[in-house]
Amino acid sequence: MTDETKTDLYFMNEAIVLAKEAASLGEIPIGAIVIFKEHIVGKGYNRREIDFDPLAHAELLAIKQASQHLNSWRLLDCTLYVTVEPCPMCAGALVNARVKRLVFGCKDLKAGAVDSLFHICNDPRLNHRLAITAGVEEEACANLLKNFFKELRKPN
Amino acid sequence: MTDETKTDLYFMNEAIVLAKEAASLGEIPIGAIVIFKEHIVGKGYNRREIDFDPLAHAELLAIKQASQHLNSWRLLDCTLYVTVEPCPMCAGALVNARVKRLVFGCKDLKAGAVDSLFHICNDPRLNHRLAITAGVEEEACANLLKNFFKELRKPN
Repeated sequence: MTDETKTDLYFMNEAIVLAKEAASLGEIPIGAIVIFKEHIVGKGYNRREIDFDPLAHAELLAIKQASQHLNSWRLLDCTLYVTVEPCPMCAGALVNARVKRLVFGCKDLKAGAVDSLFHICNDPRLNHRLAITAGVEEEACANLLKNFFKELRKPN
Repeated sequence: MTDETKTDLYFMNEAIVLAKEAASLGEIPIGAIVIFKEHIVGKGYNRREIDFDPLAHAELLAIKQASQHLNSWRLLDCTLYVTVEPCPMCAGALVNARVKRLVFGCKDLKAGAVDSLFHICNDPRLNHRLAITAGVEEEACANLLKNFFKELRKPN
C-alpha cells in the first residue's frame, strides 16, 4: 500500500464519520473534508433539510470553511475528500475554488457530475482541472446510503 | 410587448443594479434576484474577492436568501434573474433548488453551463428542469462586463 493510498483511506474515513453525523440528523449521509498540508481545514456534511438550504451539500460547506480558514477563495493546494461523487453544483464549486485534487467514494449514477453524467472536474474547456481519484472506501460509502434509504422505506 | 416581457425587463434591471454594486466594490459585475409571486425574495451580487469565498456568486447568494425567506430548500414557484449565463456551480444550484424558471442576460462562452458549454438546467437525466429565457437586456449586461474589464486593463 503506497503512502498516498494510506492517506486517502485515512481521510476518507474522516469524511465517513461526517456522513454518519448527517444520517443521525435524518439527512442523506454524505460527508466531505478539505485537506491542506495534511491538516483538515474544512468539514461538512449534508444539512439540506435542517438548514432549509439547497446549497448545504457536504462539499460546499467544507469548501466554504476551508476558504475562511485560508483567507482565500483559491484552494490551490487542497484536496477534497467526499463520500459520494459530487453533483453539478459541487463539481462546479470545486473548479471555481481551484481545488487541486478530488477523492470520492462511490459513484452517483443519477446526478454525478465528475464521471457519471458530466465530466466537470476535468473538462479542457474550463479554466481549471482537478486530479481525480475515485472508489476510495467505495463499498462503505455506498452502504451508508443504501442503509439510510432502506431504513426510510421501512413501514412505521 | 407582452406582460411577461415587461416583467422580465423590469426584474432584469433590478439585477443590473446589483451587478453595478459589485463593480463599485471591484468585483466582476454580475447580479441576481429571485422572484416569488412578483416579489423579490432573494438578492445577490458577486462578492468572491471581498468575502474570500469561491461560492459567493450572485446566484448562490440570491438562492440562499430566498430559501431562508421562504423557509424551504425548494424554490418551486420561483424565477431567478441573473445578468450573465450561470456557471456549472450556479446552474447545478438552480436544479438542486428546484427553481421553476431562469432568465439571464448575456451568454458566458467560457464557462456558461445553461447554453454555452453544458445544458445543466434542462438535462432530461437530472431530476429537475427549468424553463429558460435568454438574452433579456443582453447588451446592457454584456457592456457592464466589457467596461469593467476595459477599466481593469487601463495603465495606472
